[in-house]
Formats: sequence, C-alpha cells, structure tokens
Amino acid sequence: MDRFELNILGCGSALPTTRHFLSSQVVNLRDKLYMIDCGEGSQLQFRAMKLKFQRLNHIFISHLHGDHCFGLPGLISTLGLLGRTSDLHIHAQPDAERIFLPILNYFCSQLPYKVIFHSFDPTKNELIMEDKSLKVYTIPLKHRVPTAGFLLEEKPKSPHIIREMIDFHQVPVKQIQAIKNGEDFIKEDGSIIFNKVFVRPAEPSHRYAYCSDTAYLQKIIPIIEGVDLLYHEATFIQKDIARARETLHSSAKQAALIAKAARVKKLILGHFSARYPDETLLLNEAREIFPNTVLAEEKMNQKI
Amino acid sequence: MDRFELNILGCGSALPTTRHFLSSQVVNLRDKLYMIDCGEGSQLQFRAMKLKFQRLNHIFISHLHGDHCFGLPGLISTLGLLGRTSDLHIHAQPDAERIFLPILNYFCSQLPYKVIFHSFDPTKNELIMEDKSLKVYTIPLKHRVPTAGFLLEEKPKSPHIIREMIDFHQVPVKQIQAIKNGEDFIKEDGSIIFNKVFVRPAEPSHRYAYCSDTAYLQKIIPIIEGVDLLYHEATFIQKDIARARETLHSSAKQAALIAKAARVKKLILGHFSARYPDETLLLNEAREIFPNTVLAEEKMNQKI
Repeated sequence: MDRFELNILGCGSALPTTRHFLSSQVVNLRDKLYMIDCGEGSQLQFRAMKLKFQRLNHIFISHLHGDHCFGLPGLISTLGLLGRTSDLHIHAQPDAERIFLPILNYFCSQLPYKVIFHSFDPTKNELIMEDKSLKVYTIPLKHRVPTAGFLLEEKPKSPHIIREMIDFHQVPVKQIQAIKNGEDFIKEDGSIIFNKVFVRPAEPSHRYAYCSDTAYLQKIIPIIEGVDLLYHEATFIQKDIARARETLHSSAKQAALIAKAARVKKLILGHFSARYPDETLLLNEAREIFPNTVLAEEKMNQKI
Repeated sequence: MDRFELNILGCGSALPTTRHFLSSQVVNLRDKLYMIDCGEGSQLQFRAMKLKFQRLNHIFISHLHGDHCFGLPGLISTLGLLGRTSDLHIHAQPDAERIFLPILNYFCSQLPYKVIFHSFDPTKNELIMEDKSLKVYTIPLKHRVPTAGFLLEEKPKSPHIIREMIDFHQVPVKQIQAIKNGEDFIKEDGSIIFNKVFVRPAEPSHRYAYCSDTAYLQKIIPIIEGVDLLYHEATFIQKDIARARETLHSSAKQAALIAKAARVKKLILGHFSARYPDETLLLNEAREIFPNTVLAEEKMNQKI
C-alpha cells in the first residue's frame, strides 16, 4: 500500500551488451510511475516488466547522451497508439525540446495527448517537480556534457488514525481530517483531548537519489546525505581509474566512497561497462568500503 | 560458404509486446550484412544474435514510421563507439536525411566514420544498390505513408572449376580466370578444349523479397515472381479485414494469395499485431492457401 520502489529497466552504459539494456528506470510511488532516463529499448522493458503505461506522467532525463534518451520517440509514439489523452511531462535540459520536437512533429503528429517539455538548469540543486506525494530535485553532476542527477523525496505522510479512540471519544467524521492534520479535539463540554491520543506517528518518508553519469564528485554528498537508496554509476573498476577520469565516469570504489561519506542506507551500482564480463569485480570493490551495496540488474525491483 | 540467409531481429508491429521486437532484419550474403528496417532495439538484437557490426555497410528503410526506423540513431552511435571507420550507407526516402541529420549532428558529432544517405523513389521499381554480389531493387507498396519493399537478388555466380581437368590439360594458372568467365582453352598445338570440360555449372542464384508494410497489392506480383523467399506482412487475420483496409495493412490470407500468385518458393509472415496472442491463427489462415508458409520469430535464421 505504501509502495515506494525502484524498477531497473536498463543499467548498461553506452555500448549495448547481451546482458544489459541502456539506462532507464521507473520509480513507483503508490502506483504513480516516474521514469528516470529513457535509453533505447525502454518501452520494451517497460512492457516486459508489466508496468502500466497509463500510470506514467513524468520522465526525467539526466543528460543528452543517446544512451539516456534515444528511447523517448518510441515511448511517446506508443503512448499515443495506446490512446493516452493526459499530458506527459518531460523534464530535461533546454536543448531536449529543440532536438526532439522535429522528430515528434514528423513521426507523431497525430498524438492524442500533449508532450510538455520542462527545462531545468543542471548546474543547480533545485526543486523541479512537485505533486501530491513527491518532490524531485536536481543534483548537479560532472560529466562530459551538462548532467543532473535526481533526488526523489517522498512528502511527509499523514499519521495513522486510531479508530478505537475516534469511536471512544465520539469524534464526528467531518473532524477526522483536522485530526489527521494535527489538531486537538474539543468536546462539546469544552474539554480538550490532545491530538496524540488519536494518532500513531506517520510512516517515515523515504528518499532516493539517482547519480549517473558522473565523475567522482564530493559536492553531491550533502545533497544526498542519508538517503534510503542511492543509485550511483560505476562504469569502471579502480584499476581503470585513468579511463574513468578521462571520460568523467566513476569507479565502483568511488561510488562506495560517496555512499559512505553521505551515510546512505543502501547503494546500488549501475551503468555497467561492456568491458567487465564479471560484475562481481565491481561489487566486491564497492563492498570493501560500503558493505550494503548491490548490483543493479534488468527487471530488478528494489524497495526504497 | 555460399551463405545467403535472413536473420529476423524483430517482427512485431508498432505496439511493442513481450513477444516481439520492432521491425528489423539482417540479410547475410557470404558474411556481408544488409539490414532492412531498423526499429527501436535493433542494435540490441543485432548484438544478442552475435551478428558482426563491422560486416554491416548498408541499411534499407522501407518507410518513415517510427517502428521501422527509431533504432537508427542508437545503432549509428554504437558503430561509432566501436571505432568504425568505413562509410555506412542508408537507403531511404528523401525525408530521412532531413529528419535524422539534426539528431546525428547533436548526439554523434564525433563519429569516426561517415553516414551517407541515399534517397530512393518509393513509387518506382528500380535498382537502388549494387555491389559485387548483390542487387537491391525497390518494390512500390501501398501504405499510409510512401513505402517501398526491397528485392534482394544475388548476382550470377561463377561456375565451379574441375581441378582434375585443369591439371590433366595443363592449363596455366593465369588462364583459369578466363575459363571461369566461360572461355575455351587453346592448347599450344592449336587444338581447342571446350570450356564445358573444365567447369560444372554455377550454383543457382537466389532472390529474397521484403514487403512490409502494405495493403494487399497485386501489382507487386510480377516483381516478386518466383522468389526463393518472400517476407510479407500479415498484421491482421481475415476476420479483421476492415481494420486492415483502414490502416493499409494485409491479412495473413492476403499475404498467402500474393505468395501463391507470384509462385514464390516460401512465405514468411511477419509484422505481427499485439491483438493476436495466438499467431497460429495467422499461420493456419495462410497455409490454407499457401502451404509452405512459416511465422517469423525473433532470432530466427532462415536460408534464402
């Protein structure tokens, strides 16, 4: 019921392999879906994982490299064929609209719904989307092109009402919302029953951070401090750190150092390079520094 | 050694399903690869089928619907990452270059090789590509946008040299090519040994026709007459013929009628709609008219 989970659609880096699809994931917060990155094949994985297209309203694109966004035209086109009518919001950098609109205008001119591009500044850590249950912030990253990660923060939840106490004190139905909002109950005789009598504290809210693609970047630590789950790219192992520096990617060790310094609860490694057939190399390297680490894999479903 | 075969990368229609990838196939003629259509995910299937990227030099796009070409930017980008240096030729309609170039210029500005667009007129049946071993002709089709199928015709092969007779008559090495080309051999004493003494007839050449997407169209029959293999779309069953007419697609029955009238050797049905979970419906419908019919499926390898 209080579902907040991460679905991995693809966690490979730019070169496709037989093991991995390209970058894309879908966060499910109480059956509302938020996609992060949309590499080629994302719609195929979306379907294969039996996610519901009509539950998807927001797509966040970290940066404009093909392996993170070439799946957009196909997905947008498919949503049209499925008869979607509600707006689809794409959050990306300013260039995205200029680049993708001609394609959409040519191939998807008959869409029964609107695609709305919202642009953000990847150099800033700021709120870019807010709805009833979620806030999404950008995390400035360091890569070969302007890049932002995303922090998804569940909003504080309502406390649980203790039904028995409501009944016992004969609280009228119309006043229950006020009690959920933290108010005390004033009886007809003027006496006050304190709010805490009626409620159990709300479930804690959770936070998820997506950081890909990026070089090792300490300045993200305060932004992602204490998140429940951190997805951090680990394109290389430490032995190939020269190549990581050159391409502005991270090693598994560096991802773990970030996770440890930010005291996150769990680290999930992704954006795997085709060069390492045995990814336990990456896992072991990270676990030496941050034990609660797992490897992303396609079709994985991870509680946040 | 004399390999000429069809590899199916994807044979679904526009809506992705868990069963099918989008339209794409690769014809292998003696280890040179020719791609026909390039729907989203084609590069993933190409890799999964262990085809060799460096053997691919020509891509033919039947029409500019997304499910037949959205895989191009990703494939082109991947070929660049793999260090390709030789030209890649894309044969498509004039709009293709205008539509895809901005994407390629933005995302693939550092390509180490050239992408060369060749445009063809889909209303004509004409030769659009010829190399040492293959000729490719367009087949005008009838669909909602200008569409062409492709006829791939293996060139006549050289006859087989009978080594024993070459030795017996002491034919000098430098004259063997002339004998392959059909010449007689004149001995030093002026006597003539006829060519047929030295050769066995060449293997017959084969032809493959790709017809997707199209409404039922009798005028293609003379063009594809007698081909060894015909891939014909069968988006619908006959019961849904009204919908086929409306969308300018074919039924399985119509595909079989074309195959029968054109006296092709074998029919392969593809471009499957998500609406038929049981595709044997399509197969049975076609086989009633044209028994030598098979269903396309992903990763299928079919001799031509």
